[in-house]
Amino acid sequence: MRILLTNDDGIYAPGLRALRPELMKLGEVTVVAPATEQSAVGHSITLLTPLLVQEVVDEQQEPMGWAVEGRPADCVKLALRELLPAPPDLIVSGLNAGSNAGINVLYSGTVAAAIEGAFFKCTSIACSLEYTRARPLDFAPGAALARQVIEQIVARSPAEGTLFNINIPDLEKGPVRGIRTVPQNVVPYVEGSYDRRVDPRGRVYFWASAEFSCPDPHPDTDVMALADGYITVTPLQFDLTQRALLQDMAGWFTFPE
Amino acid sequence: MRILLTNDDGIYAPGLRALRPELMKLGEVTVVAPATEQSAVGHSITLLTPLLVQEVVDEQQEPMGWAVEGRPADCVKLALRELLPAPPDLIVSGLNAGSNAGINVLYSGTVAAAIEGAFFKCTSIACSLEYTRARPLDFAPGAALARQVIEQIVARSPAEGTLFNINIPDLEKGPVRGIRTVPQNVVPYVEGSYDRRVDPRGRVYFWASAEFSCPDPHPDTDVMALADGYITVTPLQFDLTQRALLQDMAGWFTFPE
Repeated sequence: MRILLTNDDGIYAPGLRALRPELMKLGEVTVVAPATEQSAVGHSITLLTPLLVQEVVDEQQEPMGWAVEGRPADCVKLALRELLPAPPDLIVSGLNAGSNAGINVLYSGTVAAAIEGAFFKCTSIACSLEYTRARPLDFAPGAALARQVIEQIVARSPAEGTLFNINIPDLEKGPVRGIRTVPQNVVPYVEGSYDRRVDPRGRVYFWASAEFSCPDPHPDTDVMALADGYITVTPLQFDLTQRALLQDMAGWFTFPE
Repeated sequence: MRILLTNDDGIYAPGLRALRPELMKLGEVTVVAPATEQSAVGHSITLLTPLLVQEVVDEQQEPMGWAVEGRPADCVKLALRELLPAPPDLIVSGLNAGSNAGINVLYSGTVAAAIEGAFFKCTSIACSLEYTRARPLDFAPGAALARQVIEQIVARSPAEGTLFNINIPDLEKGPVRGIRTVPQNVVPYVEGSYDRRVDPRGRVYFWASAEFSCPDPHPDTDVMALADGYITVTPLQFDLTQRALLQDMAGWFTFPE
């Protein structure tokens, strides 16, 4: 199995470095990942500026892949169109430092890379590790769990372009309670307000607070299952059409007015 | 009616400047938009750096709103949390220079701003104008058409947090044939390949080509209706869960293995 590995934390991030050896147990891994951290860039792509590309070797000086001065979705697009000799059998994005559940799925560069992979009809899997405190973290146990889930997905031979979002709970909370397949929570997070400050030149700026909470998540969703200590797996799609409303809209418009 | 107007082309972009007077026919308009162009940034948000904010006046020196050195989604978040005295009745994003249909909806900063508005349970509408050639464009006729569609949406009193994506066809193609409510096309575009080049220091870079085509769009979708000269309206959602597959996944996983 040929696997393309990418992420949004950058090619030197410990989450990617921990997931790579796990994926090497499943097949041949090529890394094409951003040169620098790209968190919360969503599905940004680079159209107007060039994408510098550099070959990268691993700790054993073995070829590992390419670092791209661009976004996670650029990495997947460039890998599929230019860098890889043939399309991979599987695209994996992660292991992200921090969960990507609920509406944060929309902000996530990790998930966007997997969505980009699905555009190319590859089976694509985003993997994130809940990370609740600011501290150095050993990603190896989370990466091993992610690999176990990926292995079980691959064993089901999902249809082409199928897209999954995996979240691993913070392992410091206690032992993992199991794996749950759950929908994305759609109750928005409540963020701490912005800090309003004034810069040395008298200009006003706002700085996003790190606190956020999801006061009332639906019990059978990714946010809640993750909080309860389960690994979550959510199948995703990129058709944003709200079908029920679309049907209701027949006859809404006249033209010319 | 209080309206928040934003975009991804930047607060000085002609599309926003053309849409503002049209929206002023419907209510009181406050602009909170990026200070600079932010095309194809998707649902990026700014978490780690400050968001500089500056008050902006219009051509008549009347207060118009705020320019934010951030992403479209940052503008909506900041407007709702910090800048506006009360939540708006309507959020409009546009008028974008270039259509946002098919899978380009996922890349679009214009649409992401509207999705962010829906997170806050506001009726939110993204508006884009098809723009096929590199030339200065008069956005006024397109903005008038967008306002007509917005007016008809508002007249239906949509449920809170309802989200719409409007595309206006290139008006140089001929007269608009009507308004169609259609789903998002999910057939990926085929892009021209990247140009591979070498910089003056010998480093390899790739530059995305401007050409893309959608070879086989489904006939009853936004991409096709827009190509046929219709204004398109697509209701969107931000729940990415692939529900049919979710049901099929019962029993996929065992843990521990």
